[in-house]
Amino acid sequence: MNLQQFRMWHTLSLTLALVSIVLLCPGVNCSKILVVPLDGSHWLNMEIILRRLHSRGHEITVLRSLKSWYIPENSTIYTSINVRMLEDEEDLEVYNRLLLDVIECRKKSHFVRSFCQQYLITKLFSKGHGMLADSAALLLDDPVFMQKMHDAKFDLMLTDPAFPVGVILGRFLKLPVVFNVRWINNGESHFTMAPSPASYVPVSGTELSDQMDFADRVKNVLFYIYSQIEQHFYISPAYSDVFKRHFPPGTDLLSLELSADIWLVRADFVFEFPRPTMPNVVYIGGFQSQEPAPLSGDLKTFVESSGDHGIIVMSLGTFVSALPRETTEAIAAAFAELPQKVIWRFIGEPPASLGNNTLLVKWLPQKDLLGHPKTRAFVAHGGTNGMYEAIYHAVPVIGLPLLFDQFDNVHRLKARGAARVVEAYSLTKENFLEAVKDVVENLSYRENVQRLSRLHRDTPVTPMDTGIFWIEYAIRNKGAAHLQPAGYSLPWYSYFCLDVAAFLSAILVTVVWFSVFCCRIICCRRSKTKLKGE
Amino acid sequence: MNLQQFRMWHTLSLTLALVSIVLLCPGVNCSKILVVPLDGSHWLNMEIILRRLHSRGHEITVLRSLKSWYIPENSTIYTSINVRMLEDEEDLEVYNRLLLDVIECRKKSHFVRSFCQQYLITKLFSKGHGMLADSAALLLDDPVFMQKMHDAKFDLMLTDPAFPVGVILGRFLKLPVVFNVRWINNGESHFTMAPSPASYVPVSGTELSDQMDFADRVKNVLFYIYSQIEQHFYISPAYSDVFKRHFPPGTDLLSLELSADIWLVRADFVFEFPRPTMPNVVYIGGFQSQEPAPLSGDLKTFVESSGDHGIIVMSLGTFVSALPRETTEAIAAAFAELPQKVIWRFIGEPPASLGNNTLLVKWLPQKDLLGHPKTRAFVAHGGTNGMYEAIYHAVPVIGLPLLFDQFDNVHRLKARGAARVVEAYSLTKENFLEAVKDVVENLSYRENVQRLSRLHRDTPVTPMDTGIFWIEYAIRNKGAAHLQPAGYSLPWYSYFCLDVAAFLSAILVTVVWFSVFCCRIICCRRSKTKLKGE
Repeated sequence: MNLQQFRMWHTLSLTLALVSIVLLCPGVNCSKILVVPLDGSHWLNMEIILRRLHSRGHEITVLRSLKSWYIPENSTIYTSINVRMLEDEEDLEVYNRLLLDVIECRKKSHFVRSFCQQYLITKLFSKGHGMLADSAALLLDDPVFMQKMHDAKFDLMLTDPAFPVGVILGRFLKLPVVFNVRWINNGESHFTMAPSPASYVPVSGTELSDQMDFADRVKNVLFYIYSQIEQHFYISPAYSDVFKRHFPPGTDLLSLELSADIWLVRADFVFEFPRPTMPNVVYIGGFQSQEPAPLSGDLKTFVESSGDHGIIVMSLGTFVSALPRETTEAIAAAFAELPQKVIWRFIGEPPASLGNNTLLVKWLPQKDLLGHPKTRAFVAHGGTNGMYEAIYHAVPVIGLPLLFDQFDNVHRLKARGAARVVEAYSLTKENFLEAVKDVVENLSYRENVQRLSRLHRDTPVTPMDTGIFWIEYAIRNKGAAHLQPAGYSLPWYSYFCLDVAAFLSAILVTVVWFSVFCCRIICCRRSKTKLKGE
Repeated sequence: MNLQQFRMWHTLSLTLALVSIVLLCPGVNCSKILVVPLDGSHWLNMEIILRRLHSRGHEITVLRSLKSWYIPENSTIYTSINVRMLEDEEDLEVYNRLLLDVIECRKKSHFVRSFCQQYLITKLFSKGHGMLADSAALLLDDPVFMQKMHDAKFDLMLTDPAFPVGVILGRFLKLPVVFNVRWINNGESHFTMAPSPASYVPVSGTELSDQMDFADRVKNVLFYIYSQIEQHFYISPAYSDVFKRHFPPGTDLLSLELSADIWLVRADFVFEFPRPTMPNVVYIGGFQSQEPAPLSGDLKTFVESSGDHGIIVMSLGTFVSALPRETTEAIAAAFAELPQKVIWRFIGEPPASLGNNTLLVKWLPQKDLLGHPKTRAFVAHGGTNGMYEAIYHAVPVIGLPLLFDQFDNVHRLKARGAARVVEAYSLTKENFLEAVKDVVENLSYRENVQRLSRLHRDTPVTPMDTGIFWIEYAIRNKGAAHLQPAGYSLPWYSYFCLDVAAFLSAILVTVVWFSVFCCRIICCRRSKTKLKGE
C-alpha cells in the first residue's frame, strides 16, 4: 500500500466510523439506556420521558411483553426487545371483576371499606408477584438473553418499580438504576424509602389526610401494620427463589429497591401532603403536562357553541367502559339538565338518557380540552395523570374514583377545596347533578385549583427538565452512591436503636439495683449497730 | 387651571411618581425584605445573598446591633436600623477563653471529649439565650420601633435562626419567614425539622459519620438525649417570659422556628451524610463559592515563583490569631521544610521559626488562591464556608479544627478521603509536616476532592440561584404554608403514636384477658361436668 492508498483508506475508514457514530448516536449526550416499563397508564408516563431522552440523543432499548397492552413493538424512539413477561391474557378481565368487588366494599363504613379494598388488592397482587418473580427468573435463567444484555453495555436502567423485573435485572447487570415511580410493592414509594410517621402521613388506601383525629390515627396505624404484614408475608416470599439463585445471600426485593440511585417520584407537594423525604428523591409530579394545542374540526365547533356556560369534560382513562349501566344512565340524565355542553369519553352502547348537550367521543385530546378557556369542570376517575393535568390547567374536578389510588387522589384534591367526590356505588342523577352544579357555580373550587396551579407551575426548573437532568446525572456520575442513606443497610433493631435502648436500659436497671442493694446493706448495718447500741 | 396647565401638571406628577418608583424600587421584583442576620462569619454568608437580592431590585432593611463586629452600618445594598441587641463587649474574649477550655477537652478520650465540649457550649449558650431573649423583649416592648416595623409593610423576614430574634420578630409581624440556616438552638437545623434516626444520622458535635458501630450508636443516642435536655431545660425556659407576654399561649421558640416557610440550608450532600429531609428545605450549600479572579501584585509574583511544587494556603478564618504560640512555631517550622511556597493568613508576632518559603499576610483572597491551579492544599480550621470553597475549587484539606462544628466538618471531609485532621492540642512540627506532605503527595486526596467537586457542581440550578428563587417564591406566594408538615403541630405522644399504641395495647390485653377468662370458665365447667359425671 503506497502513501496515497493509505491516506485514502484512512480517510474512508475514519468517515465510516464517524458516520456510524452519528447514525447510532446522534447527540452529544448519547448513552445507552435500558428501560423496563410497567404496562397500562404507567407506560403513558414513561413514554413521554423516553421521547425527550431520545430527542437528546440517547439510545433507548425497551423490554416489553409479547402480549403488551399499551407498549408498541415498533417505535421511532426506541428499539424493543420482546420477552416472556406477564402473559396472562385475563388481566383486563381481572380488573373488571375487581372493580365490581370494590364497589361492594365501598358500601361498608369508612373504617372497614379501606381494609376490605386492600384485602382484595393483596389477593390479586400476591398472585401477580408470583408471576412477576417467574418473569424475572425466566430472564435471568436465559443465558442467550443475558449475554445480549451484558454485551449491550448499557449505561443505565430506567424502570418503574411497580414492575419489579426492572430493578432485579438492573442490579443483576450492576447498572445505575433510576426509578420513574409512584408505587412500589405494597404502597406509595415514600413508605419504602423515607421515615413515615403514621401520626400525620396517611398510608395509601386509607383516604385520610394529614389532619387526623384519634380514630383516624388508629386506622392509619392499623393500615401501616397491615402493609408491613403484606410486604413480609405475601410479597417478599414470592421472590425468594430468584434471589436465592442469582443474588448474594440476604438480598431481597426491598434491599434491591432501596439501592436505586435516583427516585423520580411522580408527586408534587401541591397535591401530596407534606412529609419527610430523602436526598435521592426528585419530584417530577405533573411532568407530563403541556400547554394546550388549539382544538380543530367538530370538537372546536362543539366547544365554541357552548357560549358563556362553557363545557364539562368527562374521562375515566383506562376505565373508560367500567361503569355499570345504571350509573352511566344517571350521569347522562344529569348532564342533560346542565346549561353547559359536555364532552364525554365513552365506549359502548350510548345511554338512553343522553341529552343534546352531550357529545360522546371514543378518544379526546384531554390536555387541549382541559387547557381550553371554556372548560368549567373535569369529571374524572382520579388517576394521577388526570389529577396533575387538572391542577396544571386549573380545572376543578368532580371525582368518580373506581380503583387503587383513585380514592386517595380525589380525596387530596377535595381536601384542598378543588374537588367534589361522588361514589359510583351511590351515584344518582340527583346527587351527581348537585355535585357538578356546585363545582361549576361555586367559585371557591376554581379559585382553589387556580392557587394550586400557580404554586405547581412556580418552579425554577420544569418537572420534566428536572427528571431528565437527574437521569443524565446518574449516567454521568455512574449512579449516585453518595446520596444513599446508610440507614437502608441496617437491621431493623439497629435502625430503631432498639439494641442501644436495651443496653442503656440494662445499665440503668443495674445501677438502680446496685444502688438499692447498697442502700439496703447500709440500712441493715445501721439498724444492726442501732440494735447493738440498744 | 386650564387644560394646558392640567396636562403639564399631570405629566410632571406622573414623571415624579415614576422617578420615585425607579429610585426606591429599581427592579421588577422589588419587595421589601427585613433581614435579621447573625454576626460573625454567618454575616459573610448573608451579605452575599443580600447583594444578589439588591441587584434584583429588592429593598433591604437590616437590623444590626450598635456594637456589631462585622455588619457595617452604612451600605449601598441595604438600609440599616441600629437596635440594642447583644451589647456584651466581652464576646470575642469569651470565645478565646472557650477555645482554651476546648483544647483541654480534646485531650480526653473520643467518647468523653464530645460531651465535655458540648457542656462548655451549653454553659456559654444558656447565658447567651438569656441575652437573646432580652434583646427580643427590648424590641417587642418598644412601641415606637414596632410601629415603624408595622408601617414599613415588609414582604418577608430573612433571618439566620441561630440568632432567634429574627424569627420572633418575623412571626410577631406575621411575615413570611425564610431561614438562611445551618444551626438552630441546640444543634444542626435538620434535628429540629426532620426525622433524624440516631442509628445513622450523627448528632452534631459527636464527630461520628453515618457508618456507626454499636459503641458509636450508644454515644450518638446519649448525645441526642443530651441535646433534648439542653433544648427543654436550658434554651426554652430562657424565652418563656417574652412568649408569655407577646404570643398566644403554647408558643415556644421551637414552634416558631418550625413555622418558618422555607429553610435555605447551607448544606450539600457531597459534604453532609445523606439523611431524611423535608419538602420546605432547600439546599444551598456552597452558594457563596465563585470562580477565582486572577491574582495580582506581590501575591501573584509569590505564587508564580513556586514552580511545579505549587503553593499551600493556610487560613483559620475568624480564629486567625487563636492558636497558642508553641503551635504556631511548630507549624512555621514544618512549613519551612516543605518544597512548596506557603501563604498564611496571620495576625500577631511572626513565628521565630518562619521559613523563607512562607508569606504571612493579614488578609488573603481565599477564593482566588483556592481556585489557582498551583494550589496543592488548604490548611483550614474547618469553618463551613472554607470547607465548601475547598470542595468547589477541588483543593484537599489539612483540618486544624478549633471550636463548634469545625470538628464535625473536617471529619466529614476526612470520611470522604479528602482531608487529614491534625488536632491543635497534640500538634507537633513532625506530625503536622507528615500530614501536609501526605495530603500534597498522595494523589488520592486530590482525586477524592475532585470527585466531590464534580458532584457538587453538577446541579440544574446553582445553589445561589436556588436560594434566590425560593426567597422570591416566599414573597410571591406570601409564604409556603402548603409545604408545612402537619406533624409539627402534634404533641409528642401523638406524633410518635404513643396514644394509639396504648389504645391498641389495651384492646389486645383486654381481648387476651377475656379469652383466657372464657377458656377458664369453659375448662372449669368441663371439669365440673367431668366430676359430676364421675
